[in-house]
Amino acid sequence: MNAKAKKILAAYKKLGGRIETRGKVQLPKMSDFSLWYTPGVGTVSSHLAKHPKDARAFSIKKNSVAVVSDGSAVLGLGNIGPYGALPVMEGKSLIFKNLAGIDAWPIVLDAHEPEEIIKIVKAIAPAFGGINLEDIAGPQCFDIERRLIEELDIPVMHDDQHGTAIVVLAAVINATKVVKKDVKKLKVAILGAGAAGSGTARLLRAYGIRDIVLADSKGIISKHRTDLSGEKLALSKITNPRNVSGESSLMIKNADVLIGLSGGGAITPEEIKSMAPRSIVFAMANPIPEIMPDIAKKAGAMVIGTGRSDFPNQVNNSLVFPGVFRGALDRGVRKITEKMKLSAATALASLIKRPTASNILPTVLDKRVVPTIAKAIR
Amino acid sequence: MNAKAKKILAAYKKLGGRIETRGKVQLPKMSDFSLWYTPGVGTVSSHLAKHPKDARAFSIKKNSVAVVSDGSAVLGLGNIGPYGALPVMEGKSLIFKNLAGIDAWPIVLDAHEPEEIIKIVKAIAPAFGGINLEDIAGPQCFDIERRLIEELDIPVMHDDQHGTAIVVLAAVINATKVVKKDVKKLKVAILGAGAAGSGTARLLRAYGIRDIVLADSKGIISKHRTDLSGEKLALSKITNPRNVSGESSLMIKNADVLIGLSGGGAITPEEIKSMAPRSIVFAMANPIPEIMPDIAKKAGAMVIGTGRSDFPNQVNNSLVFPGVFRGALDRGVRKITEKMKLSAATALASLIKRPTASNILPTVLDKRVVPTIAKAIR
Repeated sequence: MNAKAKKILAAYKKLGGRIETRGKVQLPKMSDFSLWYTPGVGTVSSHLAKHPKDARAFSIKKNSVAVVSDGSAVLGLGNIGPYGALPVMEGKSLIFKNLAGIDAWPIVLDAHEPEEIIKIVKAIAPAFGGINLEDIAGPQCFDIERRLIEELDIPVMHDDQHGTAIVVLAAVINATKVVKKDVKKLKVAILGAGAAGSGTARLLRAYGIRDIVLADSKGIISKHRTDLSGEKLALSKITNPRNVSGESSLMIKNADVLIGLSGGGAITPEEIKSMAPRSIVFAMANPIPEIMPDIAKKAGAMVIGTGRSDFPNQVNNSLVFPGVFRGALDRGVRKITEKMKLSAATALASLIKRPTASNILPTVLDKRVVPTIAKAIR
Repeated sequence: MNAKAKKILAAYKKLGGRIETRGKVQLPKMSDFSLWYTPGVGTVSSHLAKHPKDARAFSIKKNSVAVVSDGSAVLGLGNIGPYGALPVMEGKSLIFKNLAGIDAWPIVLDAHEPEEIIKIVKAIAPAFGGINLEDIAGPQCFDIERRLIEELDIPVMHDDQHGTAIVVLAAVINATKVVKKDVKKLKVAILGAGAAGSGTARLLRAYGIRDIVLADSKGIISKHRTDLSGEKLALSKITNPRNVSGESSLMIKNADVLIGLSGGGAITPEEIKSMAPRSIVFAMANPIPEIMPDIAKKAGAMVIGTGRSDFPNQVNNSLVFPGVFRGALDRGVRKITEKMKLSAATALASLIKRPTASNILPTVLDKRVVPTIAKAIR
């Protein structure tokens, strides 16, 4: 283990948990127990038993989000299980509170069958005002999210799909202004056809971009592929209008935008060189981008972003999920629709009045971000 | 709805949740995001994926308890479901933090089959340092708790059984000093043979009290009963040494101690009058005791307690569960043993040096209670 890793572990150990609970009322007197616990609480329990919808007004459900993961697709780390996922979900919970005042709690699941995950999330839903699914592997993540959206009466969002899609669309909108191209005529190549790739392809398409091609580890998603099923089969029908096929470098050639959502793949300088002039490259694998920004720049990319906070142009979900749930909780939104996602992306992009190659998106420190996105969720 | 109920509902609505989350670190700079979220968090995730047991040192698991209920046996309210249960579990979470500094989170389950509840609790366990089961109806509660204790590596306690048992034993010990009887020779009648009745009977027995008789709504639990199974059948074998049978008033006659754990039954003044001289009556149904203290007193009871904070001698689990989990978390205790429960009860009783009829237990405001019980859990 290197010195930096040791330092990080020591900091986390010293803290022993980055979030805690806090009472919004204190209990200095016996009468406080009578009001806020028994016998007073009986009145509220009776009321909610008869009027379950009032839970949102009278309990933590008003402002709570479960950050749910089975740890099957964590960061760039892959299937590392619930204990590996816990630090990430705890970190998201910290960000939820810090940026959007939302009471999020990590729920990491020692369960991996889609039906089981669906059952568990449905069962724990009554105490939560929203469900943020996170780092759940494809293809299960698609069914899990769809079923939960259908069957629960609170907003459910798989952040890897839609948080990513929203922030990438915002980044594409502003980067395109920098390179002075027509956004709707862009040729977009997406490396990675998992949760993030799928969500991003679908939202870019909904925005009006027609020429989108994806590739997974076996090559380009095209109608020639005979090994596709589920979401990838669906993507083969709505993307890749020129029906390119073969290895991923073939879709990168002449592309205007290359989006790395591979979770750990690699992009070569030669591939960047093969792109159209004034190219846009987002290498979003975390913690190690598919290509480092300095190398991408040397190879000719004009606008470069990563998922990391320590490089310019952070294209990261943290810009999105706090505001999406803030808006959904505040307005009692039951479903995050495609229209809301498009509004959120354009609203986020609009915060940068004059985008430049090194400044296409606001940072998470920008206090306008959460309220701007929250306003778009209605 | 009466004016008092309206006032309570208004207070809860104004607050919109009695607990919230709080970041233990703030995120004022980009470097804070790098350390406490990505890329820093990747180091901790990798570590915990390899060393899951270290979750207790590096995450919220160090200090977190899930307060889990399916709402099948809430207070004196019965089977009112997860939304009815939510205010109680939230209130317990508030007390956990306020009295013992524990980060408890309410998990109310829209699931009621024992196997399903067991599966769900096991699945969500990785992010929690302990599981407080609450207000789950018998007989399912016994199997659910037993299985979870066996199959999880964190402490699991069904508070209705064991929290109640510990505080009642402490109350019996001190009340017996007031009435000047030999505690081990007491005749104890327990009205109610659900979770609380069972837990209490078993712990009083472990303490050395031999003459314990329970009754459920169908009468006294005896070897004559042919309708018993599961826990009640087990109780019929280890209690009621005189093998009394018939309606509950027959076990109350000549009893030294009458413990109401019926969850909503009634005790008559005539029954109190039929007890042995210098009788002890704990009427613990919440929010309405089986008999009001003034009526029990008039009928001749010498020491009277209830579960409520607005009468003297509150015999309530709130005196117990915060300290039990505080001790278990601090010492990495995996199972709350019978020996620990006995130690907790005697330690709690010892806090009142000279018990009197109106002062047999400390109140929840007594700052010695939590550390004293925590110390007994080792």
